[in-house]
Amino acid sequence: MPDDFSETAPGAVPSPPERLFASDNASGVHPQVMEALQSANAGHALAYGQDPWTRQAQELFEDLFEQRVEIAFTFGGTGANLVGLQCLLRPWQAVICTESAHIAVDECGAAERFLGCKLIDLPSEDGKLMPEQIHGQLHGLGDEHHVQPRVVSITQSTELGTLYSAEEIGELADTCHGAGLLLHLDGARIANAVAAAGCTAATMLVETGVDVVTFGGTKNGMMFGESVVFLQPELAEHARFVRKQAAQLPSKMRYIAAQFSALLDGNLWLRNAGHANAMAELLAQQVADIPGVELHRSPQVNSVFATLPAWSLEPIIAWSPFYVWDQEQDLVRWVCSYDTTPKDVGAFSSGIAQILAGGHPT
Amino acid sequence: MPDDFSETAPGAVPSPPERLFASDNASGVHPQVMEALQSANAGHALAYGQDPWTRQAQELFEDLFEQRVEIAFTFGGTGANLVGLQCLLRPWQAVICTESAHIAVDECGAAERFLGCKLIDLPSEDGKLMPEQIHGQLHGLGDEHHVQPRVVSITQSTELGTLYSAEEIGELADTCHGAGLLLHLDGARIANAVAAAGCTAATMLVETGVDVVTFGGTKNGMMFGESVVFLQPELAEHARFVRKQAAQLPSKMRYIAAQFSALLDGNLWLRNAGHANAMAELLAQQVADIPGVELHRSPQVNSVFATLPAWSLEPIIAWSPFYVWDQEQDLVRWVCSYDTTPKDVGAFSSGIAQILAGGHPT
Amino acid sequence: MPDDFSETAPGAVPSPPERLFASDNASGVHPQVMEALQSANAGHALAYGQDPWTRQAQELFEDLFEQRVEIAFTFGGTGANLVGLQCLLRPWQAVICTESAHIAVDECGAAERFLGCKLIDLPSEDGKLMPEQIHGQLHGLGDEHHVQPRVVSITQSTELGTLYSAEEIGELADTCHGAGLLLHLDGARIANAVAAAGCTAATMLVETGVDVVTFGGTKNGMMFGESVVFLQPELAEHARFVRKQAAQLPSKMRYIAAQFSALLDGNLWLRNAGHANAMAELLAQQVADIPGVELHRSPQVNSVFATLPAWSLEPIIAWSPFYVWDQEQDLVRWVCSYDTTPKDVGAFSSGIAQILAGGHPT
Amino acid sequence: MPDDFSETAPGAVPSPPERLFASDNASGVHPQVMEALQSANAGHALAYGQDPWTRQAQELFEDLFEQRVEIAFTFGGTGANLVGLQCLLRPWQAVICTESAHIAVDECGAAERFLGCKLIDLPSEDGKLMPEQIHGQLHGLGDEHHVQPRVVSITQSTELGTLYSAEEIGELADTCHGAGLLLHLDGARIANAVAAAGCTAATMLVETGVDVVTFGGTKNGMMFGESVVFLQPELAEHARFVRKQAAQLPSKMRYIAAQFSALLDGNLWLRNAGHANAMAELLAQQVADIPGVELHRSPQVNSVFATLPAWSLEPIIAWSPFYVWDQEQDLVRWVCSYDTTPKDVGAFSSGIAQILAGGHPT
Repeated sequence: MPDDFSETAPGAVPSPPERLFASDNASGVHPQVMEALQSANAGHALAYGQDPWTRQAQELFEDLFEQRVEIAFTFGGTGANLVGLQCLLRPWQAVICTESAHIAVDECGAAERFLGCKLIDLPSEDGKLMPEQIHGQLHGLGDEHHVQPRVVSITQSTELGTLYSAEEIGELADTCHGAGLLLHLDGARIANAVAAAGCTAATMLVETGVDVVTFGGTKNGMMFGESVVFLQPELAEHARFVRKQAAQLPSKMRYIAAQFSALLDGNLWLRNAGHANAMAELLAQQVADIPGVELHRSPQVNSVFATLPAWSLEPIIAWSPFYVWDQEQDLVRWVCSYDTTPKDVGAFSSGIAQILAGGHPT
Repeated sequence: MPDDFSETAPGAVPSPPERLFASDNASGVHPQVMEALQSANAGHALAYGQDPWTRQAQELFEDLFEQRVEIAFTFGGTGANLVGLQCLLRPWQAVICTESAHIAVDECGAAERFLGCKLIDLPSEDGKLMPEQIHGQLHGLGDEHHVQPRVVSITQSTELGTLYSAEEIGELADTCHGAGLLLHLDGARIANAVAAAGCTAATMLVETGVDVVTFGGTKNGMMFGESVVFLQPELAEHARFVRKQAAQLPSKMRYIAAQFSALLDGNLWLRNAGHANAMAELLAQQVADIPGVELHRSPQVNSVFATLPAWSLEPIIAWSPFYVWDQEQDLVRWVCSYDTTPKDVGAFSSGIAQILAGGHPT
Repeated sequence: MPDDFSETAPGAVPSPPERLFASDNASGVHPQVMEALQSANAGHALAYGQDPWTRQAQELFEDLFEQRVEIAFTFGGTGANLVGLQCLLRPWQAVICTESAHIAVDECGAAERFLGCKLIDLPSEDGKLMPEQIHGQLHGLGDEHHVQPRVVSITQSTELGTLYSAEEIGELADTCHGAGLLLHLDGARIANAVAAAGCTAATMLVETGVDVVTFGGTKNGMMFGESVVFLQPELAEHARFVRKQAAQLPSKMRYIAAQFSALLDGNLWLRNAGHANAMAELLAQQVADIPGVELHRSPQVNSVFATLPAWSLEPIIAWSPFYVWDQEQDLVRWVCSYDTTPKDVGAFSSGIAQILAGGHPT
Repeated sequence: MPDDFSETAPGAVPSPPERLFASDNASGVHPQVMEALQSANAGHALAYGQDPWTRQAQELFEDLFEQRVEIAFTFGGTGANLVGLQCLLRPWQAVICTESAHIAVDECGAAERFLGCKLIDLPSEDGKLMPEQIHGQLHGLGDEHHVQPRVVSITQSTELGTLYSAEEIGELADTCHGAGLLLHLDGARIANAVAAAGCTAATMLVETGVDVVTFGGTKNGMMFGESVVFLQPELAEHARFVRKQAAQLPSKMRYIAAQFSALLDGNLWLRNAGHANAMAELLAQQVADIPGVELHRSPQVNSVFATLPAWSLEPIIAWSPFYVWDQEQDLVRWVCSYDTTPKDVGAFSSGIAQILAGGHPT
C-alpha cells in the first residue's frame, strides 16, 4: 500500500477492494450472528414473540440499559422509526428534525403517509439539531391553524457522520421535556455512536433522558431486524397494535431476537462498530493527501465524506461503487463496515489515487 | 400410536408432540433454506436488490409462471398485501373480500390505515367468494357517495382451509375484468393450494387471469420474506415507491431472494407444502373417530378445523398449544407444517384422545 | 285530492308537487334562518368562532342539553362525523356500526381515509344496532392482530327511517361503557327523532349516556352547517386541531352559529322536524291503498319507504324525482321536509296513483 | 384625519375603526352576494349540484377563463386545496411549495394527513417560489428512497402580500411541465392578484399554463365556499369522489354557486378586490411616516406588513385586533377588505399613531 499517492504511476489501478464502501448494509451477516440464527433454528416455537429467544433478548436489552425497557422488534429501520414515532404522536402533531434526517429524506415519505403528521425539518450544516432550533418552533403551540410539535427526532450518529455528545443529547432532552415534547432517537448506527463516544448505552441514552430509540441491527452485522426501545416503558402502551398495523410484526420473531442477543452478548455490537469506526479513521488518513480528494470533516464514526473532481466520479464508482451524497457539490460518502479490512482500505485508497492520477481501472 | 382412541385408558396422556400444531409459522427454517442463507452470506453485495441473488430469484419466478413477471420482495405477509393492493388502488376505491379474509380481520386494520380504502367484506361460509357476490357490489359504481370497488381480493388457500379450483379462480377473474376490476390473491399459503390442486402455478394463477399475487414464503419453511408477484407487470409501475413508503424494502435483500430461490429450486416449495397437506389429512383421519372431536370439514390443505367440548379447550391447549378459531362454536384450528412428522400427528391425536377420555396431561 | 286512487282515470296525471320528496336537503333555507343570516351580516367580526354569535349558540346548546357541553361547528355532516369520531379514536381502533350507517356507505370511505380506522359494519334489518351485537365484537380486545373496537356509532333517526327509544339508547350506552367503549350518535336527523319521541334532547341524549353527537342542521332548514356536540366535554380536548386538520373549520363561523341559534330559539328545530314527520305520516296514509304501492313499514320520522312495480320507477321519478333505495327490491325512499305541504303530499300521491294506474305524466 | 401623526397629542386615541384590519375573513357578506343567496332560496332543488344555480356558475367560470373548465365547489379553502391537490397526487409523490405556504403552515397538517404526501417547503424571503428552486428538487426523481416531486403549489397573491407576474407564473409552469410536474395555484386571494395585475383571469392563469386553481370566494365577500378550477379538465377525472371523501361536498350546493355567480357577474369579484387593494395602498401611505412604524414593503395587494415597537403590540391589538405575523421580528399584518372605508383606514392610522406617541386607547 503506497504511502504517497501523488507518486503512483498512471495505468496501475489495482483490483477493487473485496468489500464495498457503498454502505454498511452492503456487508453480510457476522459469523456469530449467523451462528445464532442456526442455533435458533431448533424445531418449533410459537410465533409473534412468544418464544424464549425473544425473552432472552429483552433481558439483554434491560441489562444494557440498566433498567426496565419495552422492546418492539421490527423488520427494518424505516418500520422501527414508524412504530416508535407512532406511539408518541397524534396526527395533528409534528416531528421536529433536521433536513438531512433519514425520516425526512430517505424513507419515501413513510412518516407523512403512515403517521399523517408533518415533519418540520430544520436546516443543519452538520446533521445535528440545536436546542435553540426547538425553541423557534414552539410559537404555534395551542394555535389550531398550526401543527403541534410533539416529538423531536435526532439521529445518532447522524446521516452526515457526526456525533452528538451525551451532554448535547441531555440538553436536547431537557429542552424537549421542558416544553412538553418527547425525544426520539433514530439509532440505525447507534452502535457506532456509542463505540465512538466510549461510554455506555445507558450513559448516552438513559441518563440523558431520551424517550424512545430505534436501535439498529442490520447495519452492524445482522441479516435483518431493528428494535424499538422504549426507555419510558409506558410509552409502549399501544406498541403491539401499532407494530402490527404498520406491518412490522415478524411472525418468526425468534430469528430477530437471536441476532440481537448475539450482538449484545459480550459487546459484539460495540466491537463491530468500533472496528468500522477505526477503518473509517484509517481511510480518512489514507485519502487525506491524495491530490483531488478533499475531506469534508474528520470522521467521527464509520463514514468518510469527501469531495472529488466531478470527472472522476463515474470512473471511480464504476471501479468500486458508492453513493454521491450531494451531486451539486461532488460530495461522496464512503462507509466502513464491521468486516472492512485494512487491506480493503488500502486497495480503495490506492485505486482512487490511481484514477485521480490519470490511471484507468483494470 | 393407538388406532382406537376410545379405548385409551384415562391417565396415560403422552408427552406433547415435538412440533406444534398452532400454526405453520411456528415451524423453523427448512435446512435447504438455511443452507441458502449461509451460501448467500458471501462478502459484500449492494443493498436494495441490486445483487445477483435477487436477479436469480426473479428468473426462477419467471420460470415458474412461464412469462415475464415483476417481483417485489417484502419482509412480511401483511406488508406484501399492502404493497400489492396499493399498486392497484386509489383511496376512494374499495377492495371486495370475504369477512374471514386475513386483510380484513388479522392485520389490525393495516389495509384501511395504509391504503385509506374501505374493505367490503362479504359473508362466506367456507371462506370463498362467489362471482355473484361481486355483481351485488357494483350498483354504486359512479356514485360519488359510495366507495368505488376496484379490486377483489381472495385468499388461496383460504383462511378456513378451503381451496378454489382453477376454474373458480378463472370465473372470478372474468367477473372482475368484465366489470373493470382487478383480481388480487393473497397466497400466504399458495404453495399448499398448488400442491393440493396438483397443477402448476401458471395454471392456477396465470391462465386464470389473476393480476397480482402475494406469494408466501414464511409459512413454508422460510425465515422471513414474502413476495408480491405482478402477473400483469405494468401494474408494478409504482411498486418500488410503494414498497419503500410501506417500510417493506429490505436493505439486505439477497437474504430473502436466496431463500425463495431455495424454495423454487427443484420444487421444494411444493414438496414442503404437499407434505404439510398430507400430514393434515393424516391428522384428520386420526382424530375423526375420537369421541368429542367433530371435524368441521375434510382438510383440503394443511389445516384441520374441528370442534371440541368446551371444557377440554384449556387443558388440551395447555398441553400443546393451538388457536381457538371461533370461541362461540368451540371451533379450533390445527395446522401442519413442512416438518410435521407422522409421529407428531400420532402424539397429538393420542394426547387429545386421552384428555377427552378424562386423562390428565403428564 | 282524491281519496280513492284506484278510481283515478288514466291520462290525468297532475303536475308534480311544488316541493320534492327526494331528500330533506332538497329544501331551501327556513325564513327565520334566512333572517338570522341577514341579521348576522352586520359588519366585521373576528373569524374562527371568536364572535358573539358563536358564543350565543354555544349557550343555547347548553340550555338545550341542560349541562355544559363543548360544541364544534363544522361545514357538513360527513365532516361532523369525522371530527367527532376522530376525537375518540386511535387508528388501530375500530368503530362498530350497522351496515346501512351513513358513515359506512354514504361517505365515500371518508371515515377509513381520514381516521385510518376500520368500520365494523354489522347486519341490521331496520337500521338499528342491538346491544348483543356489540358483545359479539369484543372477543378480539387485546389481540394485536385485530383492530380494537373503541366506538359504537348509531344513527338517530336511522338511515332507514326508524327510531331508537331513549331506553334502547341507554342500553347501548351502558353496554359500551361497560366494555370500555364510547357511544357516538350521528344525528343528521336528530331533530326528527326528538320530535317523534316527544321527549327533550337531554332525555334522549344526556340521560341515556351518549358521549358525542353529530347534531344536524342542514336537513332541518339550514343553508349549511352541522355541529359536533361533546356531551362529555373532556372528549373535546383536541377537537380544535382535529377540526382544522379535517378542513372543517369555517372561517366566518358566525353564519353557522346564527343559523343554529335561529333553530334552537323557540324550538324551531322541533317544530320544523315535527312538521316533516307529520307530512310523512300523511304521505304514508295517502299512498297506503294505492294499488302497486307497498309500504315497507309505518313511518317513524320524516321518511316513507315503499316498494313500487319495477316498470313504474322510471316514469314516476322522471315526473318527480326521488331515490331508489334498493334497486334489487324496487324499494324507494320519500322524504318530507320542514316546508312540505299537505298539498305537496296530495299532488305526489295523486301522481303516483295515476302513473301506476296507467296514466302518463303531463 | 391628521396628516402628521408625529404632532398628534398624547391622550387623544380615537375610537377604533368600525371595520377590522385583522383579516379579510373578518368582513361580512357583500350585499349583492346576500341578495343572490336570498334569490337562490326559492323552493326545492336537487342536492349535490344537480341544480340550475350550479350550472349557471359553471358557465360563468367558463366565460371567465375563456375555455372549458371543470369546477368543484367546496366548503372552505383548506378543503379546496386538498381536493385540487389530491386529484394530482399519489401518496409517494410530493408537493413543492414555499415555507410560508398556507398549505404548509396554516392548515394544521391537513395536506400531510389527507394526501399522505410530503410537502417540500423551500425558503423564500418574499413568499414567492423561483424556477431554479424547482430544479434543485429533481435529483431524487426515480430513486425509491425519496418522495417524487409531482406538483408545485404557489399562492397568488402570496401569504406575504406579494404578487407573481403572469410572466413569472408562465416560467414556473414551463419549468414544471418540462420536468413532468404540474402547477397548482392556491388562489384564496386570486381576485386581489388579478385586480392588482390589471389583466384577465385567463391571461394570468390559462395562458401561463396553470393546471389547477383554488379560486377563493370567502375572503372576497362570500359567506362560505371556494372553488377548485381544473384548467386542464381531464385532471378532474376523479374529483367527485375525492371531494366527497374529503368531506367537502356541499349538499345544498346552490348556495355556493349562487354566491360565485354574484361575484363573477359584472366583475364584482374584481371590484371588491380592487377596492381592498386600494385601501391597503392608502393605509400604507398613511402609516408610512408614523414614527415607530416601519413598512416591510409596499403593498402589492390588500395587506400591509409592518414592524412596530414591541411594547406597542399589546395595546394596539387590544384597541383594534390584528395578527402578529412574526413574533420575533415584531412584524404585523394588516388586511383590508372589500368593505374597508377610507374612514376606517384613517381611524386605524390615527389610533396607531396616537398609541405610539404615548397615548392611551380610549
